[in-house]
Amino acid sequence: MSGLPSLHGTVPASRRGRRVGTNDSRELILAAARRLFAEHGFDGTSLRQVAREAGVDPALVHHFFKGKDELFALSVDLPADPAEVLAGVESLDPGQRAEEIVRAVLRLWESPAQHSLVAFLRGTIGSKAKTAMLRELVTRTVLQRIMAGLPGTPEERALRGNLVATQVVGLMLVRYVVRLEPLASAAPDEVVRLVAPNIRRYLAEPL
Amino acid sequence: MSGLPSLHGTVPASRRGRRVGTNDSRELILAAARRLFAEHGFDGTSLRQVAREAGVDPALVHHFFKGKDELFALSVDLPADPAEVLAGVESLDPGQRAEEIVRAVLRLWESPAQHSLVAFLRGTIGSKAKTAMLRELVTRTVLQRIMAGLPGTPEERALRGNLVATQVVGLMLVRYVVRLEPLASAAPDEVVRLVAPNIRRYLAEPL
Repeated sequence: MSGLPSLHGTVPASRRGRRVGTNDSRELILAAARRLFAEHGFDGTSLRQVAREAGVDPALVHHFFKGKDELFALSVDLPADPAEVLAGVESLDPGQRAEEIVRAVLRLWESPAQHSLVAFLRGTIGSKAKTAMLRELVTRTVLQRIMAGLPGTPEERALRGNLVATQVVGLMLVRYVVRLEPLASAAPDEVVRLVAPNIRRYLAEPL
Repeated sequence: MSGLPSLHGTVPASRRGRRVGTNDSRELILAAARRLFAEHGFDGTSLRQVAREAGVDPALVHHFFKGKDELFALSVDLPADPAEVLAGVESLDPGQRAEEIVRAVLRLWESPAQHSLVAFLRGTIGSKAKTAMLRELVTRTVLQRIMAGLPGTPEERALRGNLVATQVVGLMLVRYVVRLEPLASAAPDEVVRLVAPNIRRYLAEPL
C-alpha cells in the first residue's frame, strides 16, 4: 500500500508498538465509537460519550485520535482517505471536475488497495449499521468536496451530489465487485471518456 | 406481495403442499443448484449435474422446475422476475426506453417487495459466490432485454448495457439502501426526469 492515501498510514510511529494495555485502550475506543456512530450517527455522538462507552479517560481518546473526524473515518475502516483521493477537485471547472472524479476513483481502485476496497464495499453494503455510517461519511467527506464551489442552492447541490454518487457507486460496484464484461476490462481512459459526461451533467448541467 | 411480479408466485398450486419427502427433494435440488451455479456459473452447470449433486432422479428436476433458467432464477432468490419487470421495454425507442427502465425500477422498489429487494442486494453484494451468480443473471436476463433491438455491434451493445447497469445499480443502492438525502425522498417522477437522460446516453447516444 506504499504511496497510497491511507488513513491507517497516518498513525505516527510513536503511537505504534506500545505496551499491550494501551493498545487495548485504543481498540476499546474504536469498538465503542463503532457502536455509537452506528446507533446515533456522527452528529449524535460525542468524544466524551465514546470515552464513557469505552470505559477510558476522555484524554486517552484525544491521545490516540486527532479528533472526531479521524475517529469516525477509522471506525468505518475506510481503506483510503477521501480528502487525499479527491485533493484539488474543488478547484476544477465542472467538465474537468467530472473527469477528475472518474480518474480519482479508477486510480484508487486500480491500486493495491483494490482488495481492501472490495472487502470494504461488500462488508458495508452487507450490514445495515455500516450502511448508516457510510451514508454519513459519503455525505460529509465526499459529496461536500465534490460539489464545493459549484452554483445552485444548497438543496440543489445536495441533490446533484446524490446523483453523482449513484453513478460513482454504480461504477465501482459493476466494474470491480460484480465485474460485468466488457466494462470490467475496459482501459481506464476509456472508462473516463464513457462515464465523465454523465457526471458532468449531474454536477452542473440543466437537469 | 399480491400483484407483484414474483418468481415464487409462478409455482402452480398443484406443486405446493405435497408430502414432506417431495418438498425435501425440491429443497435438495435448489441447494445443489446454488452450490453448482456459484462454483461453475450458469453455462458450466447442467440439470443432470444438479440432479446428481442433489442425489435425485433427473426427472424430478424437470418435475419441479420449468428449466435451467427458472432453476437459476430461483436459486438466486431473486425477489422479482426481470422478464415481468421489464416487459415491453424492447419495443420502445431509446428515449422512451430510458424513462421506462427508471420507472420500472422505481415501481418495483416502491412496492411491498422493497424489503426483500434490499435484503437481496445486501446479501448478494456481501457474498462473493452470490455476486458471481448476480453477474450471470444480470447479463443474461436484464441487459439482453434492455439492449434488444438497439443499433451497434454486439460488443458495443454489451458495453452500453454495462454502463446502463452502473447507473441503475447505483440508483437502487443510493436511493434505497444507503438512502442519501434528498434523493431518497424525491418523488418518482422527479427521479425519472433526473436520471433517464443519462441512461438514454448510455443506451443509444454517441459515447
